[in-house]
Amino acid sequence: MVLTNETDFPSEEYQFDLSTYLADRKARVEAALEASLPVTYPEKIYEAMRYSLLAGGKRLRPILGLATCELAGGTVEMAMPTACALEMIHTMSLIHDDLPSMDNDDYRRGKPTNHKVYGEDIAILAGDGLLAYAFEYVAAQTRGVSADRVVKAIAHLARAVGAAGLVGGQVVDLDSEGKPDIDVETLTFIHTHKTGALLEACVVCGAVLAGASDTDLERLSRYARNIGLAFQIIDDILDITQTQEQLGKTAGKDLQAQKATYPSIWGLEESQKQAQKLVREAKAELAPFGSAALPLIAIADFITTRSH
Amino acid sequence: MVLTNETDFPSEEYQFDLSTYLADRKARVEAALEASLPVTYPEKIYEAMRYSLLAGGKRLRPILGLATCELAGGTVEMAMPTACALEMIHTMSLIHDDLPSMDNDDYRRGKPTNHKVYGEDIAILAGDGLLAYAFEYVAAQTRGVSADRVVKAIAHLARAVGAAGLVGGQVVDLDSEGKPDIDVETLTFIHTHKTGALLEACVVCGAVLAGASDTDLERLSRYARNIGLAFQIIDDILDITQTQEQLGKTAGKDLQAQKATYPSIWGLEESQKQAQKLVREAKAELAPFGSAALPLIAIADFITTRSH
Repeated sequence: MVLTNETDFPSEEYQFDLSTYLADRKARVEAALEASLPVTYPEKIYEAMRYSLLAGGKRLRPILGLATCELAGGTVEMAMPTACALEMIHTMSLIHDDLPSMDNDDYRRGKPTNHKVYGEDIAILAGDGLLAYAFEYVAAQTRGVSADRVVKAIAHLARAVGAAGLVGGQVVDLDSEGKPDIDVETLTFIHTHKTGALLEACVVCGAVLAGASDTDLERLSRYARNIGLAFQIIDDILDITQTQEQLGKTAGKDLQAQKATYPSIWGLEESQKQAQKLVREAKAELAPFGSAALPLIAIADFITTRSH
Repeated sequence: MVLTNETDFPSEEYQFDLSTYLADRKARVEAALEASLPVTYPEKIYEAMRYSLLAGGKRLRPILGLATCELAGGTVEMAMPTACALEMIHTMSLIHDDLPSMDNDDYRRGKPTNHKVYGEDIAILAGDGLLAYAFEYVAAQTRGVSADRVVKAIAHLARAVGAAGLVGGQVVDLDSEGKPDIDVETLTFIHTHKTGALLEACVVCGAVLAGASDTDLERLSRYARNIGLAFQIIDDILDITQTQEQLGKTAGKDLQAQKATYPSIWGLEESQKQAQKLVREAKAELAPFGSAALPLIAIADFITTRSH
């Protein structure tokens, strides 16, 4: 996919082959993830952790972390342990969300969910293990970055997962189940916390490791919050318009669970429009970075045009 | 309780009032924990986290962390955020261990377990939230300590919780249920990981924050491994000899669950003897620290003489 010029960039600069970029980064992330977690005794827990961690997926979160580290003048190597940690945390959240006492999902990324394969007890522990390992991995494996930046990245990462982020979003989400009449503020709280906080951490942590200024971190945060919300609106839309095979997970679940979604509040067309507006604003935040921001711009566009 | 001289210290030095020391430290830890986690929206998750975090207990882990930080020349203030994090992690492990799909416990510290009060979904998330917050708290709240020491402490802490520590121990423990014939090596693996790893992290992290040498860290690690195992042997003994009221949790569970324990392998008397030997060896590691080690020596003695 070669994106063409929109407004902020002269056309000769805004030639960016996102497919090649994503394929390259995904391959590097996969290799790093594969190497991050060797199997040792007790094998069962490492296998359970690897089962979900290495189950594919777009690897969007680690790729965002690598991209902002480079954008802010750092290298892929500096951010790779944090990129792996971001995927470990994301995976942990999926394993726990899928549990019978939570969303009770049988399929994820086209495969049986972790607890379906390893049992509920091991699935809970695999999530705990991945969450703890994420922090160990950043703290013990990051090279070429000053310790104060590593500490700052860990603080951001941890805040994004906890009650002030992902966990808080999931609590309100569970509370809203069977209440199709919740307002758009509650729905937005859910998504800015359940999905948005970690996406924001991806973008911020990469830039923190490279030593970005506070002004740049704020711009990148706003970019991330916008694409995070756009990402979720599109997810809601796809849940309605796509089949299980295309999604690799149970389709139409939101409708079945009588969950409020953006399409259920705004309708499909308005939801699509809002997602595009968010992406437009996200890209505007990147203007000061010039061509260094091309990957992030292309990723923002990719989010609104993706079909799964 | 004023302990009297044994071998390594002249009697005038080895006068240490452990009860007063523990009461003072416990009060400071309680105050720090209380302040560490204010309630905000969504209240339910913060309340669930606080319900278990502030449910009392001996606070032995944070107290150990504070003690080794002082032993190694640091201050209580330097180690307090890490001390709180140690208790958050310990609490998280109890909440998840008590879940129906794990040990299925209804009582903990004399109160209904977290999932009995808040439901299984919230209990899982409260554990996740506490685990993440522990790392955020160390990274964001530690003062007067260089960032490289904070990173090192976080790496130790995280390793102690993950598959190489607590989680790995719990997996083997679950696997051993209903197998009263497991060998002493497996039993020791369970305890050195499920309980020992975090106790070791308490001792090591406190000293790391104060900038202890590698030699001192190794001595303190050996001390911690020994008292960790002794602690568990005594726990097994108390499970048999004490009532539910004295323990504040369901008594006799190990027998009911047909779990192998040290008393079931060695008998009560030999178990008591082994625990005392471990404590003796633990104390010997502390000789080079002189009177600065008095709190740790007294804590080691306390472990073998405690009755709940």
